[in-house]
Amino acid sequence: MQAPSASYSLTVRLEIVNKPGMLGRVTSAIGKAGGDIGAIDLVVVGKSTITRDITFKASDERHGQEVVDGVRAVQGVKVVNVSDRTFLMHLGGKIEVRGKMSVKTRDDLSMAYTPGVARVCMAIHADPEKAYALTIKQNAVAVVTDGTAVLGLGDIGPSAAQPVMEGKALIFKEFAGVDAFPVCLATKDADEIVSIVKAIAPVFGGINLEDISAPRCFDIEARLQRDLEIPVFHDDQHGTAVVVLAALLNALKIVKKRLGDVRIVFTGAGASGIATAKLLMRAGAQHIIACDRAGALYRGRVDNMNPMKEWFAKHTNEKKLRGSASDALQGADVFIGLSGPGVVALKDIKAMGRDPIVFAMANPIPEIQPEEAGPYVRVMATGRSDYPNQINNSCCFPGFFRGMLDVRARRVNDEMKLAAAQALSAIVSKGELSEEYITPSMFDSRVVPAVAEAVADAAARTGVARRRGRGRPAPAPAAR
Amino acid sequence: MQAPSASYSLTVRLEIVNKPGMLGRVTSAIGKAGGDIGAIDLVVVGKSTITRDITFKASDERHGQEVVDGVRAVQGVKVVNVSDRTFLMHLGGKIEVRGKMSVKTRDDLSMAYTPGVARVCMAIHADPEKAYALTIKQNAVAVVTDGTAVLGLGDIGPSAAQPVMEGKALIFKEFAGVDAFPVCLATKDADEIVSIVKAIAPVFGGINLEDISAPRCFDIEARLQRDLEIPVFHDDQHGTAVVVLAALLNALKIVKKRLGDVRIVFTGAGASGIATAKLLMRAGAQHIIACDRAGALYRGRVDNMNPMKEWFAKHTNEKKLRGSASDALQGADVFIGLSGPGVVALKDIKAMGRDPIVFAMANPIPEIQPEEAGPYVRVMATGRSDYPNQINNSCCFPGFFRGMLDVRARRVNDEMKLAAAQALSAIVSKGELSEEYITPSMFDSRVVPAVAEAVADAAARTGVARRRGRGRPAPAPAAR
Repeated sequence: MQAPSASYSLTVRLEIVNKPGMLGRVTSAIGKAGGDIGAIDLVVVGKSTITRDITFKASDERHGQEVVDGVRAVQGVKVVNVSDRTFLMHLGGKIEVRGKMSVKTRDDLSMAYTPGVARVCMAIHADPEKAYALTIKQNAVAVVTDGTAVLGLGDIGPSAAQPVMEGKALIFKEFAGVDAFPVCLATKDADEIVSIVKAIAPVFGGINLEDISAPRCFDIEARLQRDLEIPVFHDDQHGTAVVVLAALLNALKIVKKRLGDVRIVFTGAGASGIATAKLLMRAGAQHIIACDRAGALYRGRVDNMNPMKEWFAKHTNEKKLRGSASDALQGADVFIGLSGPGVVALKDIKAMGRDPIVFAMANPIPEIQPEEAGPYVRVMATGRSDYPNQINNSCCFPGFFRGMLDVRARRVNDEMKLAAAQALSAIVSKGELSEEYITPSMFDSRVVPAVAEAVADAAARTGVARRRGRGRPAPAPAAR
Repeated sequence: MQAPSASYSLTVRLEIVNKPGMLGRVTSAIGKAGGDIGAIDLVVVGKSTITRDITFKASDERHGQEVVDGVRAVQGVKVVNVSDRTFLMHLGGKIEVRGKMSVKTRDDLSMAYTPGVARVCMAIHADPEKAYALTIKQNAVAVVTDGTAVLGLGDIGPSAAQPVMEGKALIFKEFAGVDAFPVCLATKDADEIVSIVKAIAPVFGGINLEDISAPRCFDIEARLQRDLEIPVFHDDQHGTAVVVLAALLNALKIVKKRLGDVRIVFTGAGASGIATAKLLMRAGAQHIIACDRAGALYRGRVDNMNPMKEWFAKHTNEKKLRGSASDALQGADVFIGLSGPGVVALKDIKAMGRDPIVFAMANPIPEIQPEEAGPYVRVMATGRSDYPNQINNSCCFPGFFRGMLDVRARRVNDEMKLAAAQALSAIVSKGELSEEYITPSMFDSRVVPAVAEAVADAAARTGVARRRGRGRPAPAPAAR
């Protein structure tokens, strides 16, 4: 059973007989059933009963039910209501569109809307670049998905994907002051997705592609990058690549090895795997072997291939090593898991070289559990928030788009990704760096400004910035 | 020259020599040049000078410059800065996307985003109707344009149209608590627009088509209405129709005539003209004649026709009257101008029947000026905010969508439009009704709830509501 988590937490409203010792009985019952108690609130004190709200974390729906049943069994306690906090948080959606000014009088209206707005329209018509100054384009990002590869849930469609896209929009605003809006498309046709995004692009200063399955995501991204004059960033690929590179740069400092020397084994040859491998190679990595279920990918392999795997076969594994991931890990320096739970065994980790670095990033269940592998590796990281060293795209995308919007970037390039990764790794100072702290938390207030500045500088340096000035810094949450 | 207006107002920052009488000289100079002074703010008092911000309205850009030149000519005054308030208001865009909750801790994040969000996604995947409860769909409207018929500006394209769409979004939120987002499309192809709107529809509970030129707007609207399970409302057509019918119902009370009896002459046979004629006929109007530049539209006319005009020719003007608008107005009861400035002459108005009703709605310059026609008509209305009886779509669309979203309507129908018009006209009580007050102001707090309730009721009555309860009332501005 998973550890109790906030993602499954319940609030029970209880009417408890007003006698000494009763609250203790209730909390004991929750604890005995494995619930992790958070807040206890007093709702109302009646003549013979006290009503309280008790919030606890559970492991999953069934476990939550067991805890509630445990409470119900306590004599003198009536369960008035059970509410699921995660669902409550999503009720009515997680974002809203607000005006930045109020419209209280006809004068307000005649400036913000007709007839005054006509002057603003004509100014943009005369000089289209003015759209950046006079509309939300300068700060707006479309979060575009077709719902085909949502989290680990697969092809659940655009409506079911929307809570994730709203969550991204929430993070965009909260962490980087970016106005992001979900675009959840009821089509999986790559041509149609490309033409839709091109058609809606005028409103936006950047496009964040999200949870679009491979290999369509490559084609869609490449065509949009080619045809649009605003940056297009597939976060599942490049966000992952940036945060992995950032963490790896710091992990290598700990073990005192050079990126160009280490042997890196991937499990997972999907979209994020390719993007990560490419960025690591761009940063200097020379020895990468990627494995799928059928084992190492090598030039000449014919079974179970696709264009992504062909790329790996052609550009990595220079010694054409064959065999399983287990074989590949023999003596390897770095393991990067972008695949699924339980893909590697402890013996494989034990067989790695000196001071192994293990990034087991399958989410929510890693390729190997930190409890299991931890004792045998020097640096252990996962995608989870409940272990040290969480490698998390949320450290990248808010600042990355903040930087691109600040300079009105025309596109994304590798220099910007490398700069973002270096900036992210540089946040962890020499004195702070340790086996349990190789990458900053997304709640670290230095993350967004550092990434944004690095991206903006790299954009200016490589000539894709429309303006040099970096504009305003990322605002504090809720300050805008 | 137009009267000075807020839509062209300037704030000048002046460094004025610190001597008695100087402010008077400055304000006299502004007044002499025809500027209409609003606020006068003290910025800083220096040793020898006082810095002030003076805001004034002008008629147009040239006039504003003349006023500034007049101030500059006053001895002892230095113009530090001139800012255009309308452009200032639009800087950076007029709307923003905000999270409804803050994300301060990993627990927040694990409920709003991964891993908790996965549970919410799967709940929608299992029951797609849950998207209404668990996402912004319940309160979200897309304001869709291709920028082909923006205000009176014509085909200025999607980027130049965006300030108008943001203005609509601002009004949607401010007046009705609706989360509207601009979708400004870089295509004019009707097929493509239809497929794009269908593809982006999952996020939204309603589609507001806006400023799309005729005849494409009819086709686009009809196909979307047919294929989508959310209401599609072309505001230029139906918003106009609703507010005109509402105003006409009240104007007819004043002159004590019945809708079925009066002879109504239209100028303008475009999209808003057809929609208005249709709704008036649905409400009982029987004698309508529409005119274009070539005169009355009648069955059998062959010159200068198009499908819209064919409709008018076929369904109105039962006596096949020929001739100009001037001829048609002879003895008419009602004139409805949805065309352009100066289309009718005073003699035409003078030739109308007893107690003429004139709605001259071309914007910003009416078919005939109220100053000119006023003395000869019983009820005069325009689309302008600076005369009595402004007939304004903004009285309709916020409440109309509020009502549709509250009952999760599947589509729009005529009953909803009629109900909205009746609700709007009923706001003006018998005691309040007068020649100068036939339609409520959009700032009247009764407007949105009345329209919303009428629309929701009509939707429920006609079976297009997904739920009967009307949900929450429209919130006060900024309360959500």
